[in-house]
Amino acid sequence: MNRDVAAEIDALFPQMPDNRRRELLIAGLRSFQVVGFHGTSTRAVAKAAGLSPAAVYVHFESKVALLYEIALAGHRGSLDAVRAALDADRASSRHRVLTFVETFTTWHASHAAVARVIQYEMSALPDDKRSRVVRVRRATEGLLRAEMLAGIKDGSISVDDPDTTRRALLSLGVDVARWYRRSGRIAPDDLGRQYAALADGLLGRPAARRNAS
Amino acid sequence: MNRDVAAEIDALFPQMPDNRRRELLIAGLRSFQVVGFHGTSTRAVAKAAGLSPAAVYVHFESKVALLYEIALAGHRGSLDAVRAALDADRASSRHRVLTFVETFTTWHASHAAVARVIQYEMSALPDDKRSRVVRVRRATEGLLRAEMLAGIKDGSISVDDPDTTRRALLSLGVDVARWYRRSGRIAPDDLGRQYAALADGLLGRPAARRNAS
Repeated sequence: MNRDVAAEIDALFPQMPDNRRRELLIAGLRSFQVVGFHGTSTRAVAKAAGLSPAAVYVHFESKVALLYEIALAGHRGSLDAVRAALDADRASSRHRVLTFVETFTTWHASHAAVARVIQYEMSALPDDKRSRVVRVRRATEGLLRAEMLAGIKDGSISVDDPDTTRRALLSLGVDVARWYRRSGRIAPDDLGRQYAALADGLLGRPAARRNAS
Repeated sequence: MNRDVAAEIDALFPQMPDNRRRELLIAGLRSFQVVGFHGTSTRAVAKAAGLSPAAVYVHFESKVALLYEIALAGHRGSLDAVRAALDADRASSRHRVLTFVETFTTWHASHAAVARVIQYEMSALPDDKRSRVVRVRRATEGLLRAEMLAGIKDGSISVDDPDTTRRALLSLGVDVARWYRRSGRIAPDDLGRQYAALADGLLGRPAARRNAS
């Protein structure tokens, strides 16, 4: 489990010049995951990172700052992954919705520790910091919304309630972070593909095919 | 929010003879929801319930006991709701899967505070208590599994990977507890019906209809 947490931090912060900062992020994420934000003490994080409590404050001004850094990087990582996948997908809007689901799901399985902490501890962030994180989240959701609306307009998607369907598509990916374990039977990208196939069933029959029948 | 929490406790423990016990469950759930299990102190729960810390121990031997009571009642409540709905549904296995999703989703929206605390804090329970809760959870999931297998056998359900589909159907309901707010635009049972309609898209085309085309 600790190795997973370290791998997730390394994936989110690929160019970390300072090893002590890295150790603190790993120890912080690990502690948030196990005992939650409110159960985490700066002292325990320092100890797990092999530093003095005072040394923590050289890198993070507070426990909140540590959580915020992880939450912001996590949300940006997810947004970047989805955006890159959509940029590379020139197919129909319907297909791009499936690409969103595949990428979003794969990301949540690959970054389950980060994603879980973000989901469970968002309310611990003060308003201004939470607002910044929520903006990134809204941008991600906005990409899905835009593709869905485009798909409804061009007839490739046919759903009763776009908001509910969008919510469900996001839930599939988000909830992966709760139950997914790397030790399980399925790799993150396989799960992403499976969920994209499921998502196809939520988008209704394309108008063209319906007209043909 | 406090009123929702009280309503959820009252729904889970309909015949509570002792009002102090009720106040402690409400205060405990509220605190778990806001600062998490590890951030909750028995002292704070006692204060919120208008009792002395010593009085807490008359009713619950520990903070763990309080969480356990809520977690067990929550899981049993969800299981009972689903079982009752399935008992009343004499239609096809496919329809019964949709009934499961509708009931499970509605329950998670109606009991969002309990469900969220259960999902987020399960790991705080010691092994023996967690095992008992997990047994109830497995029973619920077993009802869905059985209906899905029956539907696959009778041809009313056609899916590529029953395990992944079952996981996705459960995720839709579970994740409701994360985002659902009573103040939002949709009532619990409306959401349940919408999600059942979505779930229909995840179960493939019935064999009969496929043969006819």
